Amino acid sequence: MPDPHQLAHDAGRRGELPIEETERLIAADKVEGTGVYDRDGHSLGTVSTVMIDKLTGKVAYAVMSFGGFLGLGERYHPLPWRTLTYDTRLGGFVVDITKDQLEAAPSYVAADSPWSDPQFGRSVYDYYNVPWYF
Amino acid sequence: MPDPHQLAHDAGRRGELPIEETERLIAADKVEGTGVYDRDGHSLGTVSTVMIDKLTGKVAYAVMSFGGFLGLGERYHPLPWRTLTYDTRLGGFVVDITKDQLEAAPSYVAADSPWSDPQFGRSVYDYYNVPWYF
Repeated sequence: MPDPHQLAHDAGRRGELPIEETERLIAADKVEGTGVYDRDGHSLGTVSTVMIDKLTGKVAYAVMSFGGFLGLGERYHPLPWRTLTYDTRLGGFVVDITKDQLEAAPSYVAADSPWSDPQFGRSVYDYYNVPWYF
Repeated sequence: MPDPHQLAHDAGRRGELPIEETERLIAADKVEGTGVYDRDGHSLGTVSTVMIDKLTGKVAYAVMSFGGFLGLGERYHPLPWRTLTYDTRLGGFVVDITKDQLEAAPSYVAADSPWSDPQFGRSVYDYYNVPWYF
């Protein structure tokens, strides 16, 4: 059995934080790259980043990347944070959304600048029918 | 003058999000690596990650890394999110804390597991004398 102190030491040497997740807390750099699944466990994409509201300190969106290859043709789908539930068994987030619903959802490609339009964020919350985050 | 569409296209090819910051929103992966400065503009460290409260969706802490070399001997200082103010001139966060105050603040090294102790988070908020985040 590996020595937990040695593992922590090795993690430290790699510059990683030792505990990135507790019952309530999760590190943003652990969220990034985490898989997103539908209710049946089918992969929908991975979390690219999370968007933080500077004034309220609330996570407004998880931005999921979906499709594409080496960043080419990749689409970004912002999901309201509260649509995501972490599933320890899957090691990823589960959303109550089908692939078809996701394909019709507000999204953008890397060359777009959707966040400069305040209506874009509202359209995301409207589409998923969840209350605005603040 | 560079063509903004070409720049956006190149950013897209690198897999970067086009707009990572608006007036209200900032992407977590942009926060990570951002400098932290005192009121006089002296560098205190850089943001390593942010800790998100899964239940409330609120950013509880920015974890600042401070000192060390290649992750060896590096100390992590969690700062309540509301202690940080983004300064567009500096291109980083300003905190109303001196280096001496920071050195005496709750911190940990990579081999520690502070978040498993719920009192650790409280001690951070107490030290900086700001209201608890939820």
